[in-house]
Amino acid sequence: MRKVAVIGVGHSKFGVRKDVNLSELTFEAVKPAIDDAGVTRKDIDFVSFATVGGMYEEALPAVVAAEYSGLTGAGLVRCEAACASGSAAFFNSYLNVASGQVDISMAVGIEKMTEVDTPTMMEMIGRAGSYLWEFHNFGMTFPAYYALYASAHMARFGTTEEDMAEVAVKAHKYGAMNPNARFQRETSVDEVLSSYLVAWPLKLYDCSPICDGSAAVVLASEEKVRELGVDTPIWVSGVGYSSDTANLSKRPDFVGLRASVSAADKAYKMAGVGPGDLDVANVHDCFTIAEIMAYEDLGFCERSKGAEMVREGMTEVDGEIPVNVDGGLKAKGHPIGATGCSMIYELTTQLRDEVESRSRQVPLDSYTALAHNVGGTGHYCYVTIIRRE
Amino acid sequence: MRKVAVIGVGHSKFGVRKDVNLSELTFEAVKPAIDDAGVTRKDIDFVSFATVGGMYEEALPAVVAAEYSGLTGAGLVRCEAACASGSAAFFNSYLNVASGQVDISMAVGIEKMTEVDTPTMMEMIGRAGSYLWEFHNFGMTFPAYYALYASAHMARFGTTEEDMAEVAVKAHKYGAMNPNARFQRETSVDEVLSSYLVAWPLKLYDCSPICDGSAAVVLASEEKVRELGVDTPIWVSGVGYSSDTANLSKRPDFVGLRASVSAADKAYKMAGVGPGDLDVANVHDCFTIAEIMAYEDLGFCERSKGAEMVREGMTEVDGEIPVNVDGGLKAKGHPIGATGCSMIYELTTQLRDEVESRSRQVPLDSYTALAHNVGGTGHYCYVTIIRRE
Repeated sequence: MRKVAVIGVGHSKFGVRKDVNLSELTFEAVKPAIDDAGVTRKDIDFVSFATVGGMYEEALPAVVAAEYSGLTGAGLVRCEAACASGSAAFFNSYLNVASGQVDISMAVGIEKMTEVDTPTMMEMIGRAGSYLWEFHNFGMTFPAYYALYASAHMARFGTTEEDMAEVAVKAHKYGAMNPNARFQRETSVDEVLSSYLVAWPLKLYDCSPICDGSAAVVLASEEKVRELGVDTPIWVSGVGYSSDTANLSKRPDFVGLRASVSAADKAYKMAGVGPGDLDVANVHDCFTIAEIMAYEDLGFCERSKGAEMVREGMTEVDGEIPVNVDGGLKAKGHPIGATGCSMIYELTTQLRDEVESRSRQVPLDSYTALAHNVGGTGHYCYVTIIRRE
Repeated sequence: MRKVAVIGVGHSKFGVRKDVNLSELTFEAVKPAIDDAGVTRKDIDFVSFATVGGMYEEALPAVVAAEYSGLTGAGLVRCEAACASGSAAFFNSYLNVASGQVDISMAVGIEKMTEVDTPTMMEMIGRAGSYLWEFHNFGMTFPAYYALYASAHMARFGTTEEDMAEVAVKAHKYGAMNPNARFQRETSVDEVLSSYLVAWPLKLYDCSPICDGSAAVVLASEEKVRELGVDTPIWVSGVGYSSDTANLSKRPDFVGLRASVSAADKAYKMAGVGPGDLDVANVHDCFTIAEIMAYEDLGFCERSKGAEMVREGMTEVDGEIPVNVDGGLKAKGHPIGATGCSMIYELTTQLRDEVESRSRQVPLDSYTALAHNVGGTGHYCYVTIIRRE
């Protein structure tokens, strides 16, 4: 297997982006990623395009957006792994280079969720489980899925609504420092707790927002990295992936995501590192409880101790393992297809020591970062470990 | 790059499959593929699932179908490249093994197009171009796209409606010998020419049918092939891919698909073979004109000579290059996400000399086969070359 590095990253402003169409929004990430890599669009041999779609007027969003970005002629595929689509596309692009098939590939994540009205979007996301059984019979929407997990975690481990609120407070704190984030103001535990109830125990401020945005990553082989004289290549050292049952009633418990544990195991093993080696991580905080469970699933702490990590500030920028110090899905926003690539964007700039707002730049030690991206309620999971040498 | 072989294939009956749901239809291909490979479902490390989707009640068809087939826990992604989705998933599964990431992977293609009513399906397929420009402004549906190509080919090279009808006659002849084919009766030039007009010069019998079906392929590394003692591994010797503009007005001409030429060039180069080395091929005959253009795009003949190949029977089972002797998309059916994997199924059984109906088994010489799978109107193209050693 060839060594593969991230050599360029790009990111759009996340938010309600009615000012641009699908192609224009894509270009906002593709252009800076190609410039950052020091290549031209003609050097890109394969493009893995992540979008959950099903919501656009264009049936072939990858083709339309690739044409607008001048990438016509490259190999092309659209990857879907629900909210982990961006990581699935990154993995596909990684495999293209790792296998020797191409020298330079690109993963592009995009979602334009505000193109449809909110109730329709809620229904579409609610279907992201076992539709016929759960949505159709029980009327489950997506917050309800994570509410099951939250209430189980509370009952079994004593996690509280305040603990979850602290996750939101942390997210908004860093979102306020990130010009690409959708939400750029801080919040408080009181404000989170008094926000309106969505699905008990989850309130509005426990939920990541519907959002538009894009992110792109350029990958290259070791030979190409040398040839281009890339200053600070960020090497892909581990990739892990797993899936779980569509039907939640077949899961063994509701206090963690089995797919996350399995994907992380694979990625750690491949990279030859453990949670203690990480300088920084981005985890899939689609809801505040998801971040607490991720700490446990990824081995940042023992099972049951996730809330304690938040309470003790262990995942703040100066903590043991800084997590989601770009605002996370919660405050940066969660344009579902873009999120996986957005995580790689953030972690690459962190490892390069190039975060614009220095107050959220993590102190670097081992130069290792982890991205954890979940699709559905753990129906898919991808974990990616990248490293600066 | 590691050598990768096809070690198992499975195929459902294609047709109007209202007797099964999405998961059951998937299982009809997955089960025989796993059995054929001589492995168990637990040996499958990664599953690349092809479906164009957007038409199912289930928002995460890959997850739901994977669970039903007992594949939960494997790495999973859904690949979309329009009608070339099956080949894109095959390529993704190939890369997983070629890179050394996993030892055994599986590509599964499925589409259940009759789940929605025909006018809705026609609209959905009609969007598979540059929707906002072409469908919205000009009311283009999918046959209209290929009708542009057909009329240009007729005007420039003298290809006739009778020539195209001959392609349909050939397809039905072999479909009648294939128990998995949707259409199992022969037709005649007269019947094709007198079938109702869809988009001039294309008549009903020039068009592949809306269809349900599934196909699956198990891939393994060379080491695993040895370990399993696979009798007749079919090696993947070349893969090529390209894309073209969403907007047809930006194409240089309408007598061939630029993406096909480019994808074929890459695949031939990688495999170190040319068209003259092929024993058998499956090409993307979504419309009869598409098969004629494919002959030219793939270098089976000079540009302009495609119709001559049909007239002279050069692509019959005993011809120079037998093409689509399983009935092709035209008579076997075209469940869009399944088609790419269905091509690999057919070519694998051909190269193994295992076609059940011996009258459509090609004589084997170089033991090399080519699959050509187009998405949209050449918006995507994947070409795969496989070989028996």
